[in-house]
Amino acid sequence: MTPPAARGTVELEWLEGGITAVPGILASGLHCGIKPGAARDLALVFSSTPATATGVFTTNRVVGAPVKVSRERLRAGVTQAIVASSGCSNVATGEQGLRDAREMTEIVAKQLRIPEERVLVASTGIIGRYLPMEKIRAGLPKLVKALSPQGSRHAAEGIMTTDTHPKEAAIRVELGGRPVTLGAIAKGTGMIHPLMATMFCFVATDLAVERDALRAALRRAVAGSFNRISVDGDRSTSDTVVILANGLAENRPLARGDRRLRVFQHALDALTQRLAVMQVRDGEGATLVIDVRVRGAKTRRDAEVAARGIANSPLFKTAMAGRDPNWGRVVSAVGASGAAVQEERIAIWYGEEQVCQQGRLRDGVSWELVKAELAKPEVTLTVDLGLGTAQDHIWTCDLTTDYVKINTGTS
Amino acid sequence: MTPPAARGTVELEWLEGGITAVPGILASGLHCGIKPGAARDLALVFSSTPATATGVFTTNRVVGAPVKVSRERLRAGVTQAIVASSGCSNVATGEQGLRDAREMTEIVAKQLRIPEERVLVASTGIIGRYLPMEKIRAGLPKLVKALSPQGSRHAAEGIMTTDTHPKEAAIRVELGGRPVTLGAIAKGTGMIHPLMATMFCFVATDLAVERDALRAALRRAVAGSFNRISVDGDRSTSDTVVILANGLAENRPLARGDRRLRVFQHALDALTQRLAVMQVRDGEGATLVIDVRVRGAKTRRDAEVAARGIANSPLFKTAMAGRDPNWGRVVSAVGASGAAVQEERIAIWYGEEQVCQQGRLRDGVSWELVKAELAKPEVTLTVDLGLGTAQDHIWTCDLTTDYVKINTGTS
Repeated sequence: MTPPAARGTVELEWLEGGITAVPGILASGLHCGIKPGAARDLALVFSSTPATATGVFTTNRVVGAPVKVSRERLRAGVTQAIVASSGCSNVATGEQGLRDAREMTEIVAKQLRIPEERVLVASTGIIGRYLPMEKIRAGLPKLVKALSPQGSRHAAEGIMTTDTHPKEAAIRVELGGRPVTLGAIAKGTGMIHPLMATMFCFVATDLAVERDALRAALRRAVAGSFNRISVDGDRSTSDTVVILANGLAENRPLARGDRRLRVFQHALDALTQRLAVMQVRDGEGATLVIDVRVRGAKTRRDAEVAARGIANSPLFKTAMAGRDPNWGRVVSAVGASGAAVQEERIAIWYGEEQVCQQGRLRDGVSWELVKAELAKPEVTLTVDLGLGTAQDHIWTCDLTTDYVKINTGTS
Repeated sequence: MTPPAARGTVELEWLEGGITAVPGILASGLHCGIKPGAARDLALVFSSTPATATGVFTTNRVVGAPVKVSRERLRAGVTQAIVASSGCSNVATGEQGLRDAREMTEIVAKQLRIPEERVLVASTGIIGRYLPMEKIRAGLPKLVKALSPQGSRHAAEGIMTTDTHPKEAAIRVELGGRPVTLGAIAKGTGMIHPLMATMFCFVATDLAVERDALRAALRRAVAGSFNRISVDGDRSTSDTVVILANGLAENRPLARGDRRLRVFQHALDALTQRLAVMQVRDGEGATLVIDVRVRGAKTRRDAEVAARGIANSPLFKTAMAGRDPNWGRVVSAVGASGAAVQEERIAIWYGEEQVCQQGRLRDGVSWELVKAELAKPEVTLTVDLGLGTAQDHIWTCDLTTDYVKINTGTS
């Protein structure tokens, strides 16, 4: 499940330091009182120089006020800061919600002495409540003062909701003879789903890159990472992935078609996939990660639909929680998915051990080997539809009683 | 949630006796050893005279051997018996599965001295295992001997899997001056979903009706009942709804276009809706039934998609398990459903109490009234999209830790 180490000849070096591993990036996080207790609930990421920026947002037709404001701001393509809060998503809050989101950017901009238009905003948490602006107004100036080149961890904590730990990663890659750094913080857990769902990922890099090329690279990375994971099949109203490229690597700026983009894409893919798998592993109540691979599909779309069908099946996910290699539920989920399927061509493996052949139980299955696979924290399920050559995969997690407890508020 | 009492002037009389309330219908159920313990695992329904018959089956692309056999048999349109088993679904069992399903009908036919082609077969339970035919061969002759005009309850028990109680219903209606009876047994619980999923419903009536008219009536009834319920969004490989009309009421046979069909449809709708709600109420781990109503949609399709989106959202269903009126999760589910939605037009009610207006919290909500609604065993959630006049609804249940325990085998 570890992201592919190095494709081709590109060498990646994993770094400590998260998003602040990137030159010119400062971050901070603190508690202002949105969440009960003392948990951090505000986060700030700041680039000392204006950065080329682009973002990808939720596909939910209801989106939060912060998503509306950030989308608008990104049209100009230059960003210098992202202010984020957790505990209240500022969704389904009408005009008041828009005013609150804008005020957050305004306060931060004033303190940072940059134009308000260069500040993005993101909020996560319960839907349908107004932000406690008194607390936020008091907290934001402190948040700006707390900015630090070692602030990544605090910022990662400031965006956590039901996450059990902060998520950050950084990577260095050589590009045209120069070292370039990419760093990120993320949050995930409940409602994580294909097509973006209550998850944030803020990425920064010191690469100099044109906006079109940056946008294409981000879309491609998201398609292979955050859109390839699923926790409960729900989709949030607030998902936000943003990348800031501040150019401090002083490379000759990359434009579309530049061959060096392949190296950058490789690094960005590795970074986002690592964070995506972290999100699944920390899915609400999850005890294991399952890489659901479908191959032999008639079309790529069929492969995706079948993989999502399995990854979102409550019956498959509860079987996994019980470490029960119930391949019948896999067959059923595939059949219900809508993908082209011929029962007598289906083959299924847990890890390397084949359990189903020609749509029925394979003779001589080693249930010991299957059990050993299911004892791993990261399980691979492979389904071959036997109808073509297309393939796809989805990372998912099991469905446990803890998921239900977390979401009924009884945990 | 009680099915609509009487539309127009049709008077319905609910009867005891389930499927054997119908003249000429016998039934039986017993334990042969497919299930552990002593629970009944075989069921038989028999019509003393050949009956006009039709059926509706799962939309899953992988279907069990019994579904294949029964579909084939129904082409002739004359049926006299349904033999069913529980504990093993005989799905994903290849040629052997087909032989086993046919052998079940062959044994029953021989004992009943009727042609094998007049016997349907249905099996429910775990997927991917072969039927224990030794036990079944020994059990079937006893099952035929046990046939009784009071056998409905035993047959209803014989098809149970994780159901906590048997499900049966019967109804009498006057049609053209004659009393006509409809009776049924059903099983439901896990994997119950829109578009048919691990559920059986065997209906019988003494009405004389032509096959085309019977088929149209059954399809309509299923659309308004079993296809309007959802437990976990999974779809099974074995769903079967079959109706037998044996003509013993000796009415002038109904054909398509006959005005008396309206009365029959009304009775069949009421019967199937009652059984469908019983299935939801007995959903795995369920503690309450929720009638999710969507109105004000642009199209009927949008209304259905939005209602299913809510009814299948794990976050909404876990909120209901905690009796948490988290309308934000409703807004989010509607937004993610794919239906046309404008956030600022959404309105939401729990029972009669409106909680959301113009996409945000309504001022002055009585949370006491909301709490009272959520304390009922049957809750109504109404969402008005404010975009048109189309409406639809889905019955669903909450998602509890017991659902997970049942399906991980840890309960």
